[in-house]
Parts: sequence; C-alpha cells; structure tokens
Amino acid sequence: MTDSVINKNAWNKLADENIFLQFIDVTLRGCAQVMFQNNPLTGLFFFIAIFVGAFLENMPVVAFGCLLGTVVSTLTAYISKLDTVSLRAGLYGYNGCLVGVALPTFLENTPFVWLTIILGSIISVIATISLMDFLKNWKVAALTAPFVLVSWVILLASYSFLGIKGVALPDPALPQQYVQPIGNIPHSDLVVDVFRGISEVFLLSSMIVGVLFVIGLAVNSIWAAVFAVLGSLLAFAVATLLKGDFASIHTGLYSFSAVLTAIALGSTFNNPNFRVVVYAIVGVIFTVFVQGALDVVLEPFGIPTLTMPFVLASWLFLVPNQDLMPKHRQ
Amino acid sequence: MTDSVINKNAWNKLADENIFLQFIDVTLRGCAQVMFQNNPLTGLFFFIAIFVGAFLENMPVVAFGCLLGTVVSTLTAYISKLDTVSLRAGLYGYNGCLVGVALPTFLENTPFVWLTIILGSIISVIATISLMDFLKNWKVAALTAPFVLVSWVILLASYSFLGIKGVALPDPALPQQYVQPIGNIPHSDLVVDVFRGISEVFLLSSMIVGVLFVIGLAVNSIWAAVFAVLGSLLAFAVATLLKGDFASIHTGLYSFSAVLTAIALGSTFNNPNFRVVVYAIVGVIFTVFVQGALDVVLEPFGIPTLTMPFVLASWLFLVPNQDLMPKHRQ
Amino acid sequence: MTDSVINKNAWNKLADENIFLQFIDVTLRGCAQVMFQNNPLTGLFFFIAIFVGAFLENMPVVAFGCLLGTVVSTLTAYISKLDTVSLRAGLYGYNGCLVGVALPTFLENTPFVWLTIILGSIISVIATISLMDFLKNWKVAALTAPFVLVSWVILLASYSFLGIKGVALPDPALPQQYVQPIGNIPHSDLVVDVFRGISEVFLLSSMIVGVLFVIGLAVNSIWAAVFAVLGSLLAFAVATLLKGDFASIHTGLYSFSAVLTAIALGSTFNNPNFRVVVYAIVGVIFTVFVQGALDVVLEPFGIPTLTMPFVLASWLFLVPNQDLMPKHRQ
Repeated sequence: MTDSVINKNAWNKLADENIFLQFIDVTLRGCAQVMFQNNPLTGLFFFIAIFVGAFLENMPVVAFGCLLGTVVSTLTAYISKLDTVSLRAGLYGYNGCLVGVALPTFLENTPFVWLTIILGSIISVIATISLMDFLKNWKVAALTAPFVLVSWVILLASYSFLGIKGVALPDPALPQQYVQPIGNIPHSDLVVDVFRGISEVFLLSSMIVGVLFVIGLAVNSIWAAVFAVLGSLLAFAVATLLKGDFASIHTGLYSFSAVLTAIALGSTFNNPNFRVVVYAIVGVIFTVFVQGALDVVLEPFGIPTLTMPFVLASWLFLVPNQDLMPKHRQ
Repeated sequence: MTDSVINKNAWNKLADENIFLQFIDVTLRGCAQVMFQNNPLTGLFFFIAIFVGAFLENMPVVAFGCLLGTVVSTLTAYISKLDTVSLRAGLYGYNGCLVGVALPTFLENTPFVWLTIILGSIISVIATISLMDFLKNWKVAALTAPFVLVSWVILLASYSFLGIKGVALPDPALPQQYVQPIGNIPHSDLVVDVFRGISEVFLLSSMIVGVLFVIGLAVNSIWAAVFAVLGSLLAFAVATLLKGDFASIHTGLYSFSAVLTAIALGSTFNNPNFRVVVYAIVGVIFTVFVQGALDVVLEPFGIPTLTMPFVLASWLFLVPNQDLMPKHRQ
Repeated sequence: MTDSVINKNAWNKLADENIFLQFIDVTLRGCAQVMFQNNPLTGLFFFIAIFVGAFLENMPVVAFGCLLGTVVSTLTAYISKLDTVSLRAGLYGYNGCLVGVALPTFLENTPFVWLTIILGSIISVIATISLMDFLKNWKVAALTAPFVLVSWVILLASYSFLGIKGVALPDPALPQQYVQPIGNIPHSDLVVDVFRGISEVFLLSSMIVGVLFVIGLAVNSIWAAVFAVLGSLLAFAVATLLKGDFASIHTGLYSFSAVLTAIALGSTFNNPNFRVVVYAIVGVIFTVFVQGALDVVLEPFGIPTLTMPFVLASWLFLVPNQDLMPKHRQ
C-alpha cells in the first residue's frame, strides 16, 4: 500500500503543478464522485468500466457521452471560477457525467443529442450550486438530484421536440396492478444479479461492469465497496420478498438506488458502527419501496426514475442523521 | 372539573414514576395529537372511537393497525432517545397512528401488511424528525405530512409489488369533468354528514365515531371541538355550493381536511378572535378547493389524497401566520 | 424626459397625499410588476394592452377579471396592513392581476367565476407572503409562483366542481411523441410571432398587445424592453431548431416564459454586462426545455403550464446568481 500512497502523492503533486494534468485529475474525480469517492484512480476504474459496459451493450455513444458530460461540466466549473475545494474534489463533475450517460441511452443519436449533453452538463453545474445553496441550512448534500432534474426536463421535453426524439423511453401509460406472470420464471444467478444492480448506477446491466465498479470503490474505501455489495444484495432480497417484477429485479433495477443509499448512509456520511448499520438497512429497505412507488408515479409520463429513489430516501434519512448519529460527517 | 384536574394530575404523577404507564400515556397522547391535542384522555376517546368505527364497518384490522402503528412509532422514539418534551407530548406517535389506519384500509390483509405497518411507523418517525428540521426556519409544524408521504410511497409501491396488493384503491384513470348525475339525489342529513366528515380524519365514515371524536376534543379544548364542527359544516356548505359530487360530500370526503385546517388555524396555532376566525374561514374554503384539485392530480396514480389537502393549505396559511396574527402560538 | 420626470414626481406627490389616488397608483404598479416594473405609467400601458387584446379576442371578461383581481389583491394588502414598501411597489398586486386573467380565460363565465377570482386574489396575497418568507433565506423573489399555484388549484378543482366548469382547458391525455404534421406548414411572420410571444405573458396572442407591452416596459426601463424582445426571439429560434409544434411556436407559447426569464436574469436582478448576457441566454434556452417538459407533465391533468416554466428556470438560475454575478441586485 505504501507504493500506492507514494504514487498518489506523486500524482497529486503533478496535478498541482500542471493545469492540464490537474484537469484530467478533476475529471476523473468527477466520475468517481458518482459513488462519493474523491479519488482519480477510482474515476479511472469507473471510466474503464463504463467503456467496457457501453461497448458490450453495443452503445459506444453512452461511453463517449459520459466522457463529454464530465469534461464539459468540469470545464464549466473552471470557467465560472467556482469554490476551489469543491471543484478539485470533482463535486461539479459527477452530475454532468451522469447526464452524459442518460441522454444517449434514451434519445436518438443525432447531433442534437450531443448539443443537449453539452447544454445539460452546463446546466447541471448551475443546478448543483443552486441545490448546494438551497440545502446548506440542513447540511445535506445535493447528491445526484441535479443530474436527475436536468435529465428529466430534457427527457420529458423529448416528447415535445422532434429534434431530440426518444427511442428507448417507456410508453406513457396508466399504472396497473402488477400480476405475476404465469409459467416458469427464468433462472437468476444471485452473484450476477447483485453486481448487475451495482452497474445500473450508470444505467448499464452487466456483471463485469459491476465488478469493476466495486474494485474502483475498494481502491479508495473498503467500506464503500462492502456497503455497495450488501446494499445491492439487500435490495434484491426485499424486492423478491415483496414479489416485484422478476425481470426488473434480475436486471438490477431495484438495486442501483439502494446501492447508493447504502454507501451514503453506511460509509460516506457516517463512520460504520452498529447503530449506523441498522439505520442504513432501514434506509435501503425504504429505498426499494420508493423505487416501486416512483416507477408508478412516472408511468404516465414515460420517463425513468434514474437515481431519484436514492436521492429522496437519502435526503429523508440524512436530515435527521445529525440528530441520530453522534459521529456523523456532514 | 376539579375532580378531573385531580385525576389528571394523579395520572401524570403515576406516568412519571412508572415507565410502563408512561408508555401507555405517551401512546394515548400520540393518538390525540392527530387532532393536535396533548391529552391522554382525548387519546383514549379517540381509540375507543376508532375501535367502534372499525368494528361497525367490519374492518377490525384497521383498529388493530392503528394501535400497532402508534405503539411502534412511540417505541421507535423511545429507543432512538429523541427529544423528551416532544416525545412525552406524543409528537412522534400520531403519524404512525395514521399509517396504521391507512395501510389496512387500502391493502390486502396479509402478514406483509403488518410488516409494512411496522416499517412505515418506524420510517414515519424518521420522516417526522426530517420534516421538523426542514421546517424549523419557518416555525411551522410537520403536521400529518410524514404520515401522508410514507403512506403514499407504500400505496404507490403496492402497484409494483404483489406482496402488498391493493384491494380498496381507486383504479388509475385520466380526470374527467364532473357531470351531475341524472335522477334523484339521495337524502342527506346535515347533522350526520357533519360528524361523518370529522370521523373521516381517521378514514372512517360514521356519525357515532365523529361524535366520540368531538367529545374527545372537548375534554381537552372546547375551542378545538367548536372549530372541528364548524369546519366540517363550512366545508359541506362550500362543496355543495360549488356542486361537487354528492356521494363524496355526503361521506365526508370534502370535510376531513377542512376539519383539521379549522382546528389548526382556529385554535391550535392562534387564540381565537375576529381576525383569526376570518383567516380560518378563508383557510377552510381554500382547503375544499385543494381537496378538489388533489383528487384530480391523484386520479392517474390510483391513490387517495389522505390528509394532504389539510397539510398544503395549512402550511400556506401558517407561514404568514406569524406576520398576520400578533398573538400566534408557533 | 424632464417633463416626464416632473409629471412623475407630481403624480407621486399626489399619490402620497390622496389615499384614493394612491390606491390607483398601487393598482397600476401591481399590473406593471407582472413584468417586474415599479411604475404606474407602465401599468397603465399594460392595462390598456390587456383591454385592447381582450376585446380583440372577444373575451372582455378577461380584461375585467384582470382589473378585479388586481384591485382585490391590492385591497387585501391594505386591509391586512402589510409591509408598506412592498405594498406601495405593487408587489402584492401582480399575482391577483394574473389570477384575474387566467380564470375567465379557462372557466365558464358564471357568477361563481367572479367569486373565485375574488377568493383567488385574496389567497394569492397570502401565498405571496408565504413564499416571500419561505424564499427569504436564499434572497430569491416569489416571482409569479403564487399566481400559478393558486390558479392551478382552482383549474384542477374545476374538474371536481360543476359550479366552476372549465370550457377552454385541454382534455387530460397521456403524452405522445410529437409527430411533425404532413403537408404545408402555414406561413409565419417573425416580427408578429416575437410580439405575440410577449403578449402571451398575459395569456393573449396578438402583435399589437405585445407592442403595447414593450412600450410600457420601455417607459420604465429600456433594458427590460430589449431583453423582452430578445428573449422572445431566442425562444422562437430554439423551439424552431428543436422542431417543436409549429402552431404552438407561432402562437407564442414557447416564448412567454422565456420573455420573463430574459427580463429577470438580464435586467431585473442583474446589471447587464457580458457575463450576465451569457447567463441570461443559457437561462432562456433552458426555459424553452422546461416549457416543453412541463407541457408533457401537465397533459394527464388537463391544465396549462401558465408561467411556471419561467418560475422554475429562474429560481434555478437566481439562487446561484449571488455567487456567480458580483454585481447582482437581490
């Protein structure tokens, strides 16, 4: 580990001296902050995972969109001369990073979409400052809310504008009570499903991507990696117990928000102890309910929940965190 | 009255000394706080009313759910060692109390529902602290928002999970303009309807239950009882004048939120005087409009408004209350 | 200009001395504040424009509703003895002014609608104080949110109550992807469309009305007039480029919120300079996306967006405005 520390310090020194290397450093940290890690190596693993996953799913545009979004939002923060500490930690980059993943996933691949990624990434920075200011009183972070709000606006607008036409959005429909399908439920491999759930944080559904994400987390924080895996596992169990749609559970759609809630409550804003673990468990279970609820709320509008279940559940649990957890970090 | 005061003091002394009696005391107060009363005797009347109503409607599970919800949320507050003053006043119990009423009213009676009541009651406590913190700046109470938000999440999620299937939820539908039914409108008895409106605060529709609630209120505050009755009456009048659906008016569905607004604006957060009465009247009228509006908003999602019209209208009127009412209590 | 200044001072002096003239002065300022101008002459131009437009469109009730709404809300502020500086600037009048325009535009012309305008105007004042208080921490204005919220409640409630039946509301429907109509797109005159977009701020669609509004703005602030025209033009260009519905673009429906965003970000809360202009341009482009998105969100509920796209986009851009713009005015 000493080697790694030396390398890290050497890299940090280089990044301090060379503005070009610094920009690369901050861009990598931006990607890593999607899962709350302030570490360029984690970001590198994440980017590799995203490129692997995007090419595996024959959607290379998603990977390039992700890179573009992170670069543009980081650049916007530099040009706007925002708060240096937050800037260097990558806190203005992670929302643009996700905007860059989400838009090419759901919209037709035209030049317009690239312009929209650029615009969305710029506005994600404005939304981040706006939400940071708004939430300051309660010492709560903006989480991925800027990404979700900006992406929802653009995805909803895709129904109004032919220039940014949706191609992978669900058809708007009235909710119906879930009916268990008749016949054999396909086989599910628990290990594959748990890692798929983690890869869905970046809208990808692949075991190998999930494994790379966990390695990226472990590079910076073992606890973050542990909570990610346990969060995905617990969400899988809860959704199965409640008899949710098997295909959704299997693809990891009940897990990705829960993974983020688990990392946030378990390791980012608290030091793990018994009380914290119990709190994180309740938070993860509630996130699964919020996921099921928000799926229903968004059905008539034909847009996906993105990571909003995580944001809503975590805000609800983070505001009282200061009262309930003596050793919180907020 | 001297007797009652002596008994009250004797009871309070017992509750101070014996933790088991104290727990019963706080649980009763939790139920009473649904209508803003800090009095165990009021809570006792309310519980009796709920049991009477639930058995009259052949839904005993509702009464036991109510008891379970209040006990679990009170217990959660004790275990979490929350602020003693609020805890002893029952302020962590009333939302769980209502969660315990709402879930078995709308969901299939399976063991899952009982687990969901327990989970929902625990989360209602977290949501209460969260909202109390959020609203602190404006000196506004959380009201029944924690109950509504937690119950909405679970009721919406019932469309995603077969394990907590809805059985009494309205079918999701697009709103349509209300058309007055042709033929004779059934007879309506004003006195019955007014008390039914009060009983609907706990999702019950029965005159006797409403009368018991009013007695429970009067035990602690004559003004609260008076405003409850007048609020229900005024809401009945406004909805009738605006030509709302007769069956809904008759069942008390336009009244229950108005009852709570009337008590809150008229007696809980203000001392009654001319200015306050005018303000409360406008607030109650507006609550009827919000009820009509929220009914429409929730139609596509197939869930009931619960007491959200009261929460929204009262928040809107309570924030400026400090500027407008010199002798407010907030 | 000296003459005008002298007249202005003479008028102000008269208004200070005579309570009746003062009331007229404040009512006129209330109308002018819809576009952020604190000037009775601007208000006079606006009222003239509204009467011209309403009679041109054979909807005189809209003009009288507008007058009634402004008078009632101004009167409410006087009776409630609200903060004198805000009161005299017309800040309690502009929301009632718009409520008075919106309700008779969409609802059946019955005596109920007039009662509803009166009620809505009174509540718009309460909502204004409520939102002012709520937003105080972030030094952000309530904008036209009180108008939108109160009008949405009443328009939604029109589906529940036959007494306030809607006649010009869109039918509730599930969103569908926009398909470009086959055949010839009708001719569009850029100049006409740009001014129509400005007139739509008061829900009117007429070039002459738009011109009168711009003159009214110029009387008080050349910059406000410039930003109004450029905002409308830019929104027209963006919506056309994104291939939105031609009829909506042509009628000005993509412009009116953008006009308000442009005035707010460009001239009201900032002194125009290069940085501010860039910020306002991004804000206006985003407003067009929010308009497209909110149109989709409201389709299932059968109500119009009113000026909510402006409010949401401007709040998002005004919270960080203090950090980003050194010479802001908030």
